[in-house]
Amino acid sequence: MTTMEILARAKAACAGAADLKAGKINEALEKMADRLIAHTPGILTANEADMAAAKEKLSSVMLDRLLLTEARIAAMAEGIRAVAKLPCPCGATLSSHRLPNGLRVRKVAVPLGVVAIIYESRPNVTSDAAALCLKSGNVCVLRSGRDAFASANAVTDALRAGLADAGLNPDFIQLVQDPSRRSASELMTAVGYVDLLIPRGGGGLIRACTENAKVPCIQTGMGICHIYVDRSADFDMALRIINNAKTSRPSVCNAEEVLLVHRDIAGVFLPKLKKMLVDDRAAEGKPAVELRLDEAAAKIIDGTPAGPADFDTEFLDYILAVRVVDGVDEAIAHINAHSTHHSEAIVTASSRNAARFSREVDSAAVYVNASTRFTDGGEFGLGCEMGISTQKLHARGPMGLRELTTYKYVISGDGQIR
Amino acid sequence: MTTMEILARAKAACAGAADLKAGKINEALEKMADRLIAHTPGILTANEADMAAAKEKLSSVMLDRLLLTEARIAAMAEGIRAVAKLPCPCGATLSSHRLPNGLRVRKVAVPLGVVAIIYESRPNVTSDAAALCLKSGNVCVLRSGRDAFASANAVTDALRAGLADAGLNPDFIQLVQDPSRRSASELMTAVGYVDLLIPRGGGGLIRACTENAKVPCIQTGMGICHIYVDRSADFDMALRIINNAKTSRPSVCNAEEVLLVHRDIAGVFLPKLKKMLVDDRAAEGKPAVELRLDEAAAKIIDGTPAGPADFDTEFLDYILAVRVVDGVDEAIAHINAHSTHHSEAIVTASSRNAARFSREVDSAAVYVNASTRFTDGGEFGLGCEMGISTQKLHARGPMGLRELTTYKYVISGDGQIR
Repeated sequence: MTTMEILARAKAACAGAADLKAGKINEALEKMADRLIAHTPGILTANEADMAAAKEKLSSVMLDRLLLTEARIAAMAEGIRAVAKLPCPCGATLSSHRLPNGLRVRKVAVPLGVVAIIYESRPNVTSDAAALCLKSGNVCVLRSGRDAFASANAVTDALRAGLADAGLNPDFIQLVQDPSRRSASELMTAVGYVDLLIPRGGGGLIRACTENAKVPCIQTGMGICHIYVDRSADFDMALRIINNAKTSRPSVCNAEEVLLVHRDIAGVFLPKLKKMLVDDRAAEGKPAVELRLDEAAAKIIDGTPAGPADFDTEFLDYILAVRVVDGVDEAIAHINAHSTHHSEAIVTASSRNAARFSREVDSAAVYVNASTRFTDGGEFGLGCEMGISTQKLHARGPMGLRELTTYKYVISGDGQIR
Repeated sequence: MTTMEILARAKAACAGAADLKAGKINEALEKMADRLIAHTPGILTANEADMAAAKEKLSSVMLDRLLLTEARIAAMAEGIRAVAKLPCPCGATLSSHRLPNGLRVRKVAVPLGVVAIIYESRPNVTSDAAALCLKSGNVCVLRSGRDAFASANAVTDALRAGLADAGLNPDFIQLVQDPSRRSASELMTAVGYVDLLIPRGGGGLIRACTENAKVPCIQTGMGICHIYVDRSADFDMALRIINNAKTSRPSVCNAEEVLLVHRDIAGVFLPKLKKMLVDDRAAEGKPAVELRLDEAAAKIIDGTPAGPADFDTEFLDYILAVRVVDGVDEAIAHINAHSTHHSEAIVTASSRNAARFSREVDSAAVYVNASTRFTDGGEFGLGCEMGISTQKLHARGPMGLRELTTYKYVISGDGQIR
């Protein structure tokens, strides 16, 4: 089927999806999870084909994103069941009041309609996104990256079989059958067919959407996250936070990419940093972190000289750009100029600097004395997550079910005129 | 100053605007209102020049939009004082919770940053938009239409003088000095400088934004509003509502443009409609409404045959397109295919049809037995209004102060890692 045919089917399915009762949605989600488990052998076979084709092209970090195992498929199914247990966001009356003339004005949560998601090589996005869209009464059009296409197709087949098991229209969940740039650009320009486009991926995809999207769009998932170590920081705390933010999962968007260090402590702190991220890790047989150092840092420790692009790059790898700054002012200015407005942290003992950093850093999540890795829908209490919005409109930070809805006003009267 | 210079100044002013205390904002708003009154003679002189230049080009309805009087300027000043009395939307903690590991997660309302507004020939938009942006901690860049440019400049000068009187940076409010298409397109593509673009105007402007905007954008103000008169409708109520929605102020976006009438009652209802909107108004010396009739309606009453574009046109004038439909299904289908998703009404005695219409019509405001003219921030209890959003993302329907903000998460800990 062509992408436009898929979009036409999605549009036609919207009214049906919006009309679903919570019980029916949850029944379908359980059946989708059942089917995912039942289809495990076929999904693994498809994933092996994807992995074989990608082996030469992708880094080990990216291959790990692509890999499915029985345990990971089980986790995807559990993820769907967890969504079933959340409250349905639609139909709720958000506010209601009566005007002096007797008119009753109700603000009601309603689905957006057709939600299109362009993503890359993580097959679990297929099931996560589909479950969240169904739960919020939306119809989804999924566009997987080419590297994960066979896996995404196998997962989608399972989910659609689950919808059919529940007696629902399988077109509530569709996968674009053309994983090329052409289909991405068709989705970006499908005015009247796509109510919300969510690109989940790297800088190239985000820029392509900014440049070309004519449909409403939320930019997610690109994280050039900063940690600033202030003069008054507890060094052990700072090291623990940096170690976690940089090395616990470098391929994710809330991982640290840039470290800013106060000039007054750089001489003592940076050698400790190098020992932890480079020497100790190498000794333990773990991948060492490559440090890309600005001039001042390079005078203190060994590393790679930072090029001009290194402070504007989402490495998603064991690489950390390091810059020495004069204080919280320069840190805030650097972050506001270079960050992707995702997550930034300050490590400090100064409540004044913590307050300034929290107020003036213009990012979705601002941390005081904690790891940037906490930016996550589950951690933030949303119960789930469609992605991390790095824009200011509609949703910022982790997007849960509520962020996949809009509202309408329903006004009832008995002949009122103005 | 060039538009890009204005944008650079706006960006530089953001941190200052976001940092303002409520008391200071309200003091500045009062001084802006004082200055507007004090500058009345100069503003009227500028407006006379605009009116003289526009006299040949604009319809009487559009000229009325452009006209300023002492009373209208006083109303603009009162509008600013009313904004001063509303609560400030920023700084509020929207939600807060503590994670099991002790992290405190706060969701805090914050300004968007630079809000750019492209509008047409209503000089009062200049003061309304500036007041709402300041109140919500945003910096505004106003781009008036050419027809109202002298008036907008005079109003902006007064507002900036008010900011200076309060000791604030006048760059919180700036007017683009080039009222041509070029500056509109500069605003649409100023990625990194414009946090939100609000086009307030007709179809051409909205389409230009959909096609060209690369910055986040909210489409407002285009209203092809429908009223559907169901078989069971109370005719007197229907006529009263239509008369109000069509003739009380035809130049506004919540005025009715299209009437749909159930086939079973069209033979009785349409002659009453024609008597009210055409014959009686002509007899009273009021402008008669031109009826553009589909084939079925044209067999019942006299009028202009409707052309294919008449059901997709925002007339903003004493013109009403009329179509006969088979029932609520056809009415809903027609509306969802032709409306701008602004405001639609059903007149009916059937609670079943009212419920279906409310649920299935995909518009910002859906009315049962009331005039579409109520779609308004003041009427909806928002206290004010920046425009009526006809899109689903971020804000739908009347946009008040809250809709001019975003939020950030501020997370405080004592060294937590994930």
